[in-house]
Amino acid sequence: MNMHVAGAVAPSFDVANRLEAFAADFECDHPTLILDIDRVEEQYRGLKAGLGRAHIHYAVKANPQREVLERLIALGSHFDAASKGEVELCLSLGAQPHQVSFGNTVKRARDIAWAHEHGITLFAVDSAEEIEKVAENAPGAEVYVRLIVEMSPGDWPLSRKFGCDHDMALELLDHAREHGLKPVGFSFHVGSQTRRAEMWEPVLKVFSRTWAAALENGHDLSLLNIGGGFPAFYGEPIEAPAAYAAGVMELVESYFPNVPRVMAEPGRGMVAEAGVIVAEVMLVSRKSDRDMHRWVYLSIGRFSGLAEAEGEAIRYQFLTEKDGEAMGPCILAGPSCDSADVLYEKRPVMLPTSLKSGDKVLIRNCGAYTTTYSSVCFNGFPPLGVHIL
Amino acid sequence: MNMHVAGAVAPSFDVANRLEAFAADFECDHPTLILDIDRVEEQYRGLKAGLGRAHIHYAVKANPQREVLERLIALGSHFDAASKGEVELCLSLGAQPHQVSFGNTVKRARDIAWAHEHGITLFAVDSAEEIEKVAENAPGAEVYVRLIVEMSPGDWPLSRKFGCDHDMALELLDHAREHGLKPVGFSFHVGSQTRRAEMWEPVLKVFSRTWAAALENGHDLSLLNIGGGFPAFYGEPIEAPAAYAAGVMELVESYFPNVPRVMAEPGRGMVAEAGVIVAEVMLVSRKSDRDMHRWVYLSIGRFSGLAEAEGEAIRYQFLTEKDGEAMGPCILAGPSCDSADVLYEKRPVMLPTSLKSGDKVLIRNCGAYTTTYSSVCFNGFPPLGVHIL
Repeated sequence: MNMHVAGAVAPSFDVANRLEAFAADFECDHPTLILDIDRVEEQYRGLKAGLGRAHIHYAVKANPQREVLERLIALGSHFDAASKGEVELCLSLGAQPHQVSFGNTVKRARDIAWAHEHGITLFAVDSAEEIEKVAENAPGAEVYVRLIVEMSPGDWPLSRKFGCDHDMALELLDHAREHGLKPVGFSFHVGSQTRRAEMWEPVLKVFSRTWAAALENGHDLSLLNIGGGFPAFYGEPIEAPAAYAAGVMELVESYFPNVPRVMAEPGRGMVAEAGVIVAEVMLVSRKSDRDMHRWVYLSIGRFSGLAEAEGEAIRYQFLTEKDGEAMGPCILAGPSCDSADVLYEKRPVMLPTSLKSGDKVLIRNCGAYTTTYSSVCFNGFPPLGVHIL
Repeated sequence: MNMHVAGAVAPSFDVANRLEAFAADFECDHPTLILDIDRVEEQYRGLKAGLGRAHIHYAVKANPQREVLERLIALGSHFDAASKGEVELCLSLGAQPHQVSFGNTVKRARDIAWAHEHGITLFAVDSAEEIEKVAENAPGAEVYVRLIVEMSPGDWPLSRKFGCDHDMALELLDHAREHGLKPVGFSFHVGSQTRRAEMWEPVLKVFSRTWAAALENGHDLSLLNIGGGFPAFYGEPIEAPAAYAAGVMELVESYFPNVPRVMAEPGRGMVAEAGVIVAEVMLVSRKSDRDMHRWVYLSIGRFSGLAEAEGEAIRYQFLTEKDGEAMGPCILAGPSCDSADVLYEKRPVMLPTSLKSGDKVLIRNCGAYTTTYSSVCFNGFPPLGVHIL
């Protein structure tokens, strides 16, 4: 989309779509996420086409922006909520209680009671204590037991924070039944950014044995929640949403034939590519004349929206107006006085050598896990702004 | 402070002061920081007694709570601001422009201009480009050059994000003078939590050579900014503030005799011990029957106030009502669905074995780097609340 002006080529961003074109011209005083809600709809339709009979429960935590939720409600999406706050938000925007699952395995007792009073009937659990809390505060509710994925195929394997093992999962189904709950099935999370559908196979295979064991134990299971892991593009090739989702569902049908209900919880895969952040270069410097790399400081960092750069896990893509010029490696850091606010250092980022303070930078595919991860007022910097296209 | 009630010992917190006693009785629906402003004053007076002729520039980023700043302004403190937002906050509460330094070496050009228009005269720099920005937007201003500490003695050595080396520092003084600025001296940061005054010696020794070289080059230096590093109590012994500060100043006077102006920038050391967080246990669980450790999930995590638990760097101290009972190791995690929201896993935390969902937990010495580091609405959880004692 370089524009030719009377014989000369004016520098401009090599944008890929109307969202990036809009962002390239957008002026803002502090870093702002531009969101294209039509792009969310396009992604929903692609995922839905591939997932077929599975219910999509959008993982609200990825981006709880009102306009995103409203569009998804209009499209018939269901929702996965991580807290009372997210349940409340979905209901307030018109989602029906049966469309909202309370998917955090760590819930406050009074939040369970609140959700139960407001019609929520489906809760995640992965421990005896949580089952007892749900039984006491949402008597008779449906629960699914989250299984731990010991060998994640994802780019960003999750920690052992959530889920339980095969033996404990079977015990918990019994425990739930003994406490008057309806243990309806299992959930798991393959790991963030599981880039190809075929990578799901070993995980589905392992859990199909747990499913079979539960049936043998007399549990009339009806629900398989395959969680998230649906990828977004951060530079490494990924499959298109419809093909990816269809590939996953083919594996699901093969390892879990005739399972009555399937749930999927895309978050990143639904919204990441619908957002672009507009930021700027604050400073370009070297620490000494012997330094191999430049340091480039942006107006946005780990504490103002790019939390997922922690451990250099998610590698964002940067666009500048000088991208056609000579490029060189640099260490990328945020604007705060915090020494931990460094985005990429172990694997430096290639940026134009002529980059300087004040230059605009677009950060691609930032629609997920940015706005609400931004801190309240770290170092006196306001949180990430949002502009709806 | 256990209270004896008619022949039985009611469980209670083993509190150390009136702040913790208040927190023990405080009821709140979500995690809240209780701040004791008198405790801030006590700390200021201790540090001031030890620092003597040095000006204290409180590092606003540690806790920009209005009541903290108002008390410090009343006590005559100066301030170190990390952004336009922090400069604005200090001035709006009555600090005089000459009392506020703009200490971030990464500033937006228009924020420098804004600060200059509002009377700020002292800026930190560590690169040629930043000097040019200051020269253009705050002509004639005083600048100090930040030096990089290559071998930090602190518990939490800073990254190479800030500062420049000896040779470049000398070049930058020339560069500043050539651009019409007043290069008045140097700053550095020994590293967070430098627990004993004697640990400053090697750093001061190295930089005294840079200072001498600058004088030889004809720079009439007048300012040494010794930065932060003043410790708070997180379980490891530290010196009392007055003794610690006096020890540091003795070393400063010995390595930098007759330096006209000395600045110190305590942040954590000023406010950490003036705050206690009130939180609760959300869940206690195991992942399998073979698990060695329990997992304890709190209502607060890395994204809702305890950002400094990253890398298990800062080890917070926890109080419960059951601390007298049998204790056992556990992995401590936050309430969100984020798998990275784990506080302590490599070095588990000892907590009562009878701990369960709903139990209140006090977190000691949390007055620094908690409130504004809290995210806007991560996973639908509200940011850390604040209550002034």
